[in-house]
This record gives sequence, C-alpha cells and structure tokens, in this order.
Amino acid sequence: MDPRIREHAEVVADHSVDLSAGDDVVIVAPPEADDLVTALHEVIGDRGANPIALSGNDRFQRAYLRARDEEFETPSHEQALIEETDVYIAIRANRNVTETSDVDPETNAAYSQAHQPILDERLSKRWCLTQYPAPANAQLAEMSSEAYENFVWDAILKDWDAVREHQAQMVDILDPADEVRIVSGDTTDVTMSVDGNPTLNDYGEKNLPGGEVFTAPIPDSVEGEVLFDKPLYHQGREVTGVYLEFDGGEVIDHSAEKNEDVLTEVLETDEGARRLGELGIGMNRDIDRFSYNMLFDEKMGDTVHMAVGRAYGDTVGEDNEQNQSAVHVDMIVDMSEDSYIEVDGEVVQRDGTFRFEDGEDD
Amino acid sequence: MDPRIREHAEVVADHSVDLSAGDDVVIVAPPEADDLVTALHEVIGDRGANPIALSGNDRFQRAYLRARDEEFETPSHEQALIEETDVYIAIRANRNVTETSDVDPETNAAYSQAHQPILDERLSKRWCLTQYPAPANAQLAEMSSEAYENFVWDAILKDWDAVREHQAQMVDILDPADEVRIVSGDTTDVTMSVDGNPTLNDYGEKNLPGGEVFTAPIPDSVEGEVLFDKPLYHQGREVTGVYLEFDGGEVIDHSAEKNEDVLTEVLETDEGARRLGELGIGMNRDIDRFSYNMLFDEKMGDTVHMAVGRAYGDTVGEDNEQNQSAVHVDMIVDMSEDSYIEVDGEVVQRDGTFRFEDGEDD
Repeated sequence: MDPRIREHAEVVADHSVDLSAGDDVVIVAPPEADDLVTALHEVIGDRGANPIALSGNDRFQRAYLRARDEEFETPSHEQALIEETDVYIAIRANRNVTETSDVDPETNAAYSQAHQPILDERLSKRWCLTQYPAPANAQLAEMSSEAYENFVWDAILKDWDAVREHQAQMVDILDPADEVRIVSGDTTDVTMSVDGNPTLNDYGEKNLPGGEVFTAPIPDSVEGEVLFDKPLYHQGREVTGVYLEFDGGEVIDHSAEKNEDVLTEVLETDEGARRLGELGIGMNRDIDRFSYNMLFDEKMGDTVHMAVGRAYGDTVGEDNEQNQSAVHVDMIVDMSEDSYIEVDGEVVQRDGTFRFEDGEDD
Repeated sequence: MDPRIREHAEVVADHSVDLSAGDDVVIVAPPEADDLVTALHEVIGDRGANPIALSGNDRFQRAYLRARDEEFETPSHEQALIEETDVYIAIRANRNVTETSDVDPETNAAYSQAHQPILDERLSKRWCLTQYPAPANAQLAEMSSEAYENFVWDAILKDWDAVREHQAQMVDILDPADEVRIVSGDTTDVTMSVDGNPTLNDYGEKNLPGGEVFTAPIPDSVEGEVLFDKPLYHQGREVTGVYLEFDGGEVIDHSAEKNEDVLTEVLETDEGARRLGELGIGMNRDIDRFSYNMLFDEKMGDTVHMAVGRAYGDTVGEDNEQNQSAVHVDMIVDMSEDSYIEVDGEVVQRDGTFRFEDGEDD
C-alpha cells in the first residue's frame, strides 16, 4: 500500500477529527477508497475508537432512487446512527463520476430534502470530507492516475499548523474589515461589505484538503461585475465563461459561454440564489490546477471564489442577515495575473502575492 | 447483470424478510456482492422501504482488530442503528476466505463478546443471511466460478412454499417424537431424546438457502458414537474424520484424522461445548455437494447434522434445559447410503429416502 494512504488516514484521524479513545466513528466511502478505509480502520483501532463503515456506492443510490416513486421519509435507523456517533468521515472517490446522471433531479432533490435532518445532525459532529484519488476522478481532472495521486496527496499531506498560521494573516485583515473589492483584468470589478461577518480559517479540518479563508458578504451590499475564469461543474454539466452583474446585492444580468441554461436554473432556484452567500480566498498553492472538484478548486492558490446561495451560519455576525437558499454554488476567479484584492481601500493581494508575503518567495 | 441476481434480491425481499413500505433496512455486504446489493436497492426502492448499506469488508475488520489492543466496548452508534431497523440483511461473499486468518483468535472472541448485545438485537428483527457466489467462495468449494454460480442460485431460487410443505411432513414426525436414532454404516449409531423440544421448518427465511428441519436434543440424553463424513471447517482450518463418543449426553471420547487439536479446542471451550445443541435434517437436494460453507452444507439433501454447543432458544421446550455454550459447531453425517433415521422405533428415512417419499422420485 502506498505509504501516503496511511499518512492520509493519520491526518484525518489526528488533525481533522481529533480522534480519541472511545469515539464512535462513522465512515462513508465507496469501494474505490477501500485502501484508505482499511488504513483508517488501522488508525481507529490503534486509537481505541469504534468504527462502522457505510458503503457510499453510487450504483446503490442510483438503483434506489430510480426505483422509488413514492414520497421519501427520513429513515429513523440512519438518523439514530448519526445521532449516536461522535465522528463522521466522508470519503469521495468514484468509479464513474457520471454514475447518477440518469437520476431525475426532482427525485434527487426530494431525497435530499427528506435527509436534511440527518445532514444537519452530521454537521453538528466532528466531521471531515476528503478525497481518495480514484482513476475516474483523475479522468475528470484530465490527468493520469499517477499524476492525480501526486496532486491529491500533495494538497492533503501538509503541515496544517503552518497553514493555519500563514492563513491567519489573511483572517486578521478580512475579519475586522468593512469593504472588499476584487479586480481582475477588465472583466471583474466587484465590491461588497463583509462588515460584522466573521472570517473563518480553513486549515484541513472539515475539508481535507483545506486551504482557504472565507466569510459571507452582506447580502444587499454587492455591486459590480464578475467574469469567472474557471468552469463551473454543476449536476454533471460544465458551464464556462460565467458572467454576473450585481446591483444592490442581486444578480441583475448573467450569461455564460456554454450551458447558460444551467446557470439560469441555479439563479432561479429561489430569491437567495441570486445573491452571494460566500466570499472565499483560495490559499493552497499545492492545488495548482483546476480539477473539476470543488473540494480542491475552491482552495486553489491565487484564486477567489464567490458562491451564490446559502451563507454558512458561522460566517454571519449575529446582527447581520444570513442569505438563505436551497443552493450554494461556488464559482472561481483567477487572481494570479493583472488582479488585486482591496480591503478598506488598501491592496492586500496583487497578482497572487499577499501584502504579508512581500519579500517572501511563493 | 445476470437475471438471477434480481431474482435473488426479490426472494430476499419478498420471501425471506417480508419487506413492506416504510421498513428501515440494514444491508451488510462486502464489495464482491455489489451486484446483489444494487439489485436489492432497486427492490427496496420499488417497495418503498429505506436502505442503508454497511461495508462488510474483511480487510477493514482485519486492520481494525490487529491494531486494537485495549478492551472492546459495545459501540452505541451501531447499537442505535440496529435497534431502530426493521430488517437486517447480511450477504456473504469473499475476495479471500482466509483474509482474517492472521487475527488473534482471542481478539476476535473479545470483539464478538463486546458485540453480543448488537447480535442479540439483530436476531430480534426480521433478518436473512444469504450468499453471493464470489470466485473465492467457488475456490473454497473447489468449483469453477460459473459452476459455483449455478450451484448457489439453484439452491436459492426455489419454490419455497413447496419446500415448506414438503419439509412439514418431517416436522410432523419429529416434533411430537421422543427418541431419535441415527445409524450410518458401522461407524455411526447414536440415540437421543427430543421430547418436548419443538422442531422448526427452515424454508429460506432467516437462512437463504434454507432447507432443513431442526430441533435440540435433551442435553443429557445423547448416547452412542458418530463418525462425521464431511469435513468441519473451523476458523480457517479443516478437520476431517471427526469421531465423537457420547455417554449421558457428554462427549467422553473424540478423535479426528486431520487437525484433531482444533476439535479438542472446540470441545474444551466450556461445559456446554461437550454436549449437543442441535439435531438437523438436511433436505435441500439442490445442494448436492459439500462446499465448505455451513450455510449450504447443513442443508445438503440426505444428510444429518449435529452441533456441539449452544442450542437455539426456539428449539427448546419451556420445561426443558437449553444447552448453553459460547460455541455452536455443526458437523455432518452422510445418510445417502447404508443409513437410516429411526423415530420412536420406526424407520422414517432409509438411504436418503423419507417414509413419506415412498413411491416418489428423488
């Protein structure tokens, strides 16, 4: 077994979910990730905790959802399992990333809605979402399997304490700030207030890889226009050249080069889907390319991402409005060239170099 | 997908566990059985029930057990899951049947003991244990993968109502009986009382395949000697030519041609391990060969099996003693030639033909 698999398991256990003796642990993983799940069982055994492994197999889910036509209910056995667990570890890995492409989106949505109480319960635990480098995921990223393994493990097997300290410098700038302006080339110039909204430091706990700092814009404060450089991959379809224009916080105009209808559908989901729910700064420079996987893409070094839709509760100050929506769709702007981030009138990042990195190599 | 896989799933759902809309269902299966688990998800979706799939992967269990050195506890998350479920389906299938051969037996025993409350809970549900024909199981049976698939599905895809009716004739003989005598060649002549102990009809519900009728001997009533014709496969080791001599219900002498020490270890587990806990009559004639898999072997047509160790509660009359033990180890006598079963002095089966089959073809 590749020694990085055991290291990966140790990072999940010891860093991401802070595993202790006696913890009850749920692991959800597809068979492609068997090696990592085996290594996790070894670590969990060593730490004196209690694992149970669920099959996160897309084939099962597809077969079930296509066969079911009645209304869904919240299964009490699954809810009881999640209520009683201390730790929840979800591993992504695919045999075929388009396995559920012929499931009716409405069925999917009805299933998700019935499972919302279980999802909420899960998010109240110590949890981690990570990726195992399966060949189908390499294919989606247009990489060889070996190059993709290197890419995934370079992004994951890091000194996360050092990452936390490095990123804290950006948190210290953004957390007390009022106005943020993002400028890139001639196509992106957008301003928004983050006044009173906390900025969080993601250093590989709930998401592994981590590597971003993020907050929520004040919903009605967003003004200007953004051309997103990186494609959006939504429900199995690629949307390129996404352009959004904001006025009073709302998207008042939008277009895309490819699959604009997917973008339109997202924006028309509900009222909150036309407003921003997140502003994030990608700071993981080991993620040096786009891989059609938001778990990695949004942490890519020298990028900024904005999400239309729901804001995370812990990024919203208690006197501020939390943007509500059924969706949360991230989109990415490349900040590596001809770009800058301005906070309260001061440039804090230019062409991918932060103010606090002046004189440092990147 | 082989159409027999879908049929198999339907037999499990509709016959074995009597699935209804709204049922919460737990499936435990290794990745080798993915096709059957997919088909089960289709059937479960169609019937309006709620599945959750656990990974019954030997590699995980081995890694966990070898790493863990503290005492085991009963995990509350797994217990909550099983308490809340209505139906429990366990599927056996192996990639390597000796995967856990280097786990310390004491560790295994400690794990099992800590999980006993979960096992008890499971047995109180509608449950089914079945087999998917994986290549490693074919190898153990010394068969090609295709021949083994035919063997497994011939034994499973039967008219179970007809089986129930056929076997009921033997239940009607054994249930009210007092003394049973099993004679085979010069080597087996054993008598025992089953007075007051119910005889159960196994027609593919909790075990799939089914195909036996079984009861419990009165613990101190067993007298005589038995040479078991079929090998015993215990904890990854084969024991052949097992011979037991009984007096007052206790094994007073034993031997084996190969791996006698395994047999000795079983008999020395505790006091109950030296007494019989089960007498069963194998009646599934589609199981026409030994496959080193007790789920099949004990139901083989024209055989009798006896288990040393624990008696099943529902085969013990309320005024009778239930043999208690940590083990339950089945062993098989071939009754197809030079053999007979006598019940209260009357021959009820001779050379594999039951009294109620006289004039029938078998």
